[in-house]
Amino acid sequence: MPVKVAVNGYGTIGKRIAHALLKSPDFELVGIAKYNFDYSAVLAHRLGMKIFVPRDKLEEFRKHGVEPEGSIEDLVSEAELVYDASPAGRGAKNKELYVKYKKPAIFQGGEPPEVAEVSYNTLCNFEKALGKSYVRVVSCNTTGLLRVVCSLGSNAVESVFGVIVRRASDPKEDLKGPVSSLALDSAQIPSHHALDAKAVVGDLAVETVAIVAPTTLMHVQVLKIRLRKPAGFEQVVESLESSRRVLLLDAAAGIDTTGKLVELARDAGRPRYDVYENVVLASSLSRSGVELTLVQAVHQEAIVIPENVDAAYAVLNLETDVHKVVEKTNKLLGVGELKYLITTGAK
Amino acid sequence: MPVKVAVNGYGTIGKRIAHALLKSPDFELVGIAKYNFDYSAVLAHRLGMKIFVPRDKLEEFRKHGVEPEGSIEDLVSEAELVYDASPAGRGAKNKELYVKYKKPAIFQGGEPPEVAEVSYNTLCNFEKALGKSYVRVVSCNTTGLLRVVCSLGSNAVESVFGVIVRRASDPKEDLKGPVSSLALDSAQIPSHHALDAKAVVGDLAVETVAIVAPTTLMHVQVLKIRLRKPAGFEQVVESLESSRRVLLLDAAAGIDTTGKLVELARDAGRPRYDVYENVVLASSLSRSGVELTLVQAVHQEAIVIPENVDAAYAVLNLETDVHKVVEKTNKLLGVGELKYLITTGAK
Repeated sequence: MPVKVAVNGYGTIGKRIAHALLKSPDFELVGIAKYNFDYSAVLAHRLGMKIFVPRDKLEEFRKHGVEPEGSIEDLVSEAELVYDASPAGRGAKNKELYVKYKKPAIFQGGEPPEVAEVSYNTLCNFEKALGKSYVRVVSCNTTGLLRVVCSLGSNAVESVFGVIVRRASDPKEDLKGPVSSLALDSAQIPSHHALDAKAVVGDLAVETVAIVAPTTLMHVQVLKIRLRKPAGFEQVVESLESSRRVLLLDAAAGIDTTGKLVELARDAGRPRYDVYENVVLASSLSRSGVELTLVQAVHQEAIVIPENVDAAYAVLNLETDVHKVVEKTNKLLGVGELKYLITTGAK
Repeated sequence: MPVKVAVNGYGTIGKRIAHALLKSPDFELVGIAKYNFDYSAVLAHRLGMKIFVPRDKLEEFRKHGVEPEGSIEDLVSEAELVYDASPAGRGAKNKELYVKYKKPAIFQGGEPPEVAEVSYNTLCNFEKALGKSYVRVVSCNTTGLLRVVCSLGSNAVESVFGVIVRRASDPKEDLKGPVSSLALDSAQIPSHHALDAKAVVGDLAVETVAIVAPTTLMHVQVLKIRLRKPAGFEQVVESLESSRRVLLLDAAAGIDTTGKLVELARDAGRPRYDVYENVVLASSLSRSGVELTLVQAVHQEAIVIPENVDAAYAVLNLETDVHKVVEKTNKLLGVGELKYLITTGAK
């Protein structure tokens, strides 16, 4: 019997989680919670999703031809697991409802770490999430950074220095910026990414600085990683590629910008041009003794979706072998297929 | 028997035409011509497309695991119709080859009008392309403008004044600009769009001014149309929507920017987020006596694809009824489905 799952919030992350659940034989999407009417309610409705809305919004949705299934509380009470994909900071408030109905919940990185028992990344601490009630999937840039660190093995890493050039907004967020300047992401150094990474891997020596750039497509990270022992180039490549969540892009593919990377995703038929993988430009990967430098692109809208799906297996104790979970989720979403497409030609 | 068609050039327009042909029962894609190796050759190869390359590039493609089927000349000689989707200006040179092999060809708007017997838009002059050997589908902005004019009926239009705010480059074109200024598109007024529109509808009184803006997603056009006779609002809406190539977007959909429009296309599962329709913001549509004002978005990568498919039916005399052709192409590409999705909710 598939597990009944609810998605609370139908924005950038929520709609992607909901679409993933629709395709999975292991989960049944009970419904989505939507707080304001717009076109996406119509699309979701037509895909057969049940829509739950705040009690005072029932009429608004009806007026536009979308009959709500019930209230947000109804949705939570019907589910066995809730994904909280509400705007940053709202999840911590929503938690009261999950506690009231005794439902386990998976939160997003916009919430404070205290919202959950575990701040989570599959490749780093899957086991810690097993059977937990409240798990927080860390945000896009932290997920991108941790995938690299934990693919190499967090014990093998002495320190990480990362400069993150962040996209200013998602494509649909017209009122965020900057639109023409570069800005320091937060007044303090390190940026929250280092703190978040430590919330997952407690003893990681990591410093991050984030600069916001006027683009919507993807983040770019420049990572300088100091290893405890020298590692061969082949060994590094093999480690990075082992989970298929990190894709090394051969220069022969002709892709050297985030714009061209999005074009690849569009051409490859990825839904919403979603790139679930960290994309490391192979030409940027350099190694000198114990020092490793690389440049990678991180698709902020999509990269945490695999980890969100993985986390459900852990929370529900559905599958306790991390390798099997990664394989299942990769297959469900097509993670790693881009690599296959490219190295076929570029080997 | 499906007609054998070749696509010469596999960039923004060529790959979209090729993908459309793959889905059509009326055409058989003989192959595509590709001039330089990159990832898209691998993707095309894996989709089963035959790839033809310049003789001196055979080795380059082989080296990357893509076995070419033959030379560009082989491709042309095997086809019954050629789409020329080469970079602007190259099509006129390629024409020598089409003449040599006596193959009809459909050119793009980047070529000079003289390359063809007819500059073409389906809603304006489909009949003129019937049985012709060389037809030129006018460029994206001109197509967007002409669809509106000819939906209203070019005879019903006294004059058109259009201000086009052009996207600076396609998403993958990293070296085009401007990236931060606004620029006048060409030194002269009117811009080429008015001249192109007249190449299709000879006696149209039309003036256009184009400004280039730093964005990649879509163009936006502000049109002021003077009608010969006053028309009712309902009548205007009905005319615009009759072909389903012009979509009026209700304000309730919550879409008021090109970014949100792209998000809609992504959410609706449009391949490559392609928007084939002119998208008129219903809230912008205003009428005062004989004057009509509207604002519409034009997706530069996708909007000419329906017209390219239509043109093949005309050139080959496969179907001489323009309404049937529009219906066939709309069905093939899913043109008009977005309207259906939205007005379901917003009526």
